[in-house]
Amino acid sequence: MKPLRRAAILAVGSELLTPSKIDTNSLYLTERLNLLGIDLAFKSIIGDDRDELARAVQVALERVDLLVCTGGLGPTDDDVTREVVAGVLARPLREHASIADRIKARFEGRGLQMPEINRRQAMVPEGAQILENTKGTAPGLWIEEGDRVIVLLPGPPRELKPMVSALMDGLLKARASGDALVRRVIKITGRTESHTEEAVRPLYAEWASERVPVSATILASLGQIELHLSARGASIAEATTAVDAAVGEVAARLGLDAYSLDGQPLEQVVGELLRARSYRIALAESCTGGLIASRLTDVAGSSDYVTRGVVAYANDAKTDLLGVPAALIAEHGAVSEAVAVAMAKGIRASAGTEVAVGVTGIAGPGGGTPEKPVGTVAVAAIVGDTLRTRVFRFVGDRELIKFQASQAALDMVRRILQA
Amino acid sequence: MKPLRRAAILAVGSELLTPSKIDTNSLYLTERLNLLGIDLAFKSIIGDDRDELARAVQVALERVDLLVCTGGLGPTDDDVTREVVAGVLARPLREHASIADRIKARFEGRGLQMPEINRRQAMVPEGAQILENTKGTAPGLWIEEGDRVIVLLPGPPRELKPMVSALMDGLLKARASGDALVRRVIKITGRTESHTEEAVRPLYAEWASERVPVSATILASLGQIELHLSARGASIAEATTAVDAAVGEVAARLGLDAYSLDGQPLEQVVGELLRARSYRIALAESCTGGLIASRLTDVAGSSDYVTRGVVAYANDAKTDLLGVPAALIAEHGAVSEAVAVAMAKGIRASAGTEVAVGVTGIAGPGGGTPEKPVGTVAVAAIVGDTLRTRVFRFVGDRELIKFQASQAALDMVRRILQA
Repeated sequence: MKPLRRAAILAVGSELLTPSKIDTNSLYLTERLNLLGIDLAFKSIIGDDRDELARAVQVALERVDLLVCTGGLGPTDDDVTREVVAGVLARPLREHASIADRIKARFEGRGLQMPEINRRQAMVPEGAQILENTKGTAPGLWIEEGDRVIVLLPGPPRELKPMVSALMDGLLKARASGDALVRRVIKITGRTESHTEEAVRPLYAEWASERVPVSATILASLGQIELHLSARGASIAEATTAVDAAVGEVAARLGLDAYSLDGQPLEQVVGELLRARSYRIALAESCTGGLIASRLTDVAGSSDYVTRGVVAYANDAKTDLLGVPAALIAEHGAVSEAVAVAMAKGIRASAGTEVAVGVTGIAGPGGGTPEKPVGTVAVAAIVGDTLRTRVFRFVGDRELIKFQASQAALDMVRRILQA
Repeated sequence: MKPLRRAAILAVGSELLTPSKIDTNSLYLTERLNLLGIDLAFKSIIGDDRDELARAVQVALERVDLLVCTGGLGPTDDDVTREVVAGVLARPLREHASIADRIKARFEGRGLQMPEINRRQAMVPEGAQILENTKGTAPGLWIEEGDRVIVLLPGPPRELKPMVSALMDGLLKARASGDALVRRVIKITGRTESHTEEAVRPLYAEWASERVPVSATILASLGQIELHLSARGASIAEATTAVDAAVGEVAARLGLDAYSLDGQPLEQVVGELLRARSYRIALAESCTGGLIASRLTDVAGSSDYVTRGVVAYANDAKTDLLGVPAALIAEHGAVSEAVAVAMAKGIRASAGTEVAVGVTGIAGPGGGTPEKPVGTVAVAAIVGDTLRTRVFRFVGDRELIKFQASQAALDMVRRILQA
């Protein structure tokens, strides 16, 4: 049989078509499929609607050789995936005794009787193989249709993920080409998108002509640029070697501007640098409102190097907690390099750390003036004897300005640590 | 012409098919379309691939009367949406002089010359109407094809949103049925999903038999339960009246457990309660690492009531900045109700606010003990003369524990304020 190379994902569930819910299973699935050299051609989100789902399954089967459906395997009338797929393939559904027994046992193990509706979860299209669900009642299904494969998976991530892991070592691996698509995300600060492109573009032609070609895409958003590299090789090892070589070339060209060579967030990069030097850090934040401390403490083990932070939103907090003289604030304004430096020095004096940060700015939407418009942010970073400061003008809404300010402060620390 | 009732959204961009990017524009679009009584039949995410996109456009035009495409309107070769849609509709593309002039002027306004490739953005399929882009170079396009409409929008949210706002009052409103689907999201703490269901289920049958029926769905995640209500009426006013009446019935049954009756995040609800009472708040955080302060300061205008916060990660920070006696920490452990209370009292004493919060816990993955496993979090909230404390045991990973702890602390403040 031909190896599987192109996939589509259909996420099924009316809640995924409302303004407040999003399909995230497909991100995990994409990463796993890519590792087996399977590309994603498209993904679609469909409600609990027989007609729409049937049409989507038909179209997908024309376009791809692997169709993965997630969701719609529950016991209620809304859950139509099993029936619709069986219908499109014109295969009868039959109750599978051992599944029914397993579901019954699952309920009984919790002292409950199986509701009659759960019997629907034991219905299996003719010829399908059962994928065991270790975390819930709905089994997955693997259906071969000529050279194509249709996989039905439950929607809850904690049920889906173990099932996908099992497929990666079993049925799916056996049907994959042996190829692998490996990706790396390089994260960049301190350059525009076009300056990044300029620096990296000469490499593209080289990469394209390598035996294991590497391709690249640049994605820009406020506060960071990402360069996505990917290589398709005859094995995970071969693809990894190729993409890592390309990452090395990019790193050499971008120097300090590339802060992460494998997708790590900036807070993790800074954390690793602090840990490597046994440095500790303290934060004095105004407009970022605790976001820098919160990002740093999202990293496991950060209590080893994050000692304390102060969110000095009101001016008297800057004076009380950080020792910023009221006269300095009066002279320069709360949003000024002088105050950012005094905040950083103040928190360092109280914390006794090697590293300290001070950030003060105007996140908006109110509070701007002609000289200091919304988005003006002063950042000071101290590492040992080194002090750096800068005033930024960020654009975007309040949350984006907070994010960019936190990014700028963490990046300033990183650059001093890596210098 | 028939009113538009069923829409599909196609999000175009190869980056949206990688494991690290997600389409979020469709959430905003769905909410807006629903307000005009337009249901979403499905959404699909397609790479920068002419064949796949052409097929997706064809299929969508068979299924819906409004097709909204986002992305792929940039100036590079990867940006194929304009050309593919023109191709499927068999309409020639022609350069539109006034768009080219506007793009040129935009570049010149920033002291730059328009790169020749940007000329592609001035290409317009015959018969299309131009949707002005106030935030970028790519105009949107409105194309009528018989009774159906195809709308092409730029991918960046800050460019897309103003364009959609203009459509809501203009072209799109004129083609809508006049019906409206209005949704409300009620957010709930302090009950399980099944206890929420139990309390609300008796209302479902009543709602279903109303002249303007209301339907409901419950969605649960760690730290909050959401109840989504929706009503379709002959106008926004009619649907709003129906859904708001249902919201009122739910509110009466859930009492204080319903913290938000229209989807507002908890930090905004707490902020409004503080503002209404002219209270100010100060935060003393350990395991949440500044997340509570950061959430509160995500709300515009929060500088009116957020005065200061301390992130006391290290024990000496709890003593120095919050006056928590070292002996108290030694006696009870840093993660204890006694220390949470001392932290809240300490920050209140320094800030002089009416409201204060103290949070200390173990976010993990390390640091747990048999008596105090990972997820143990002590919270203290002070409002005026009222002090409440509680020790929680949260499950989930580090970020989820931080979120649940911040949620619990904000909710404790809310409940005292609303009592």
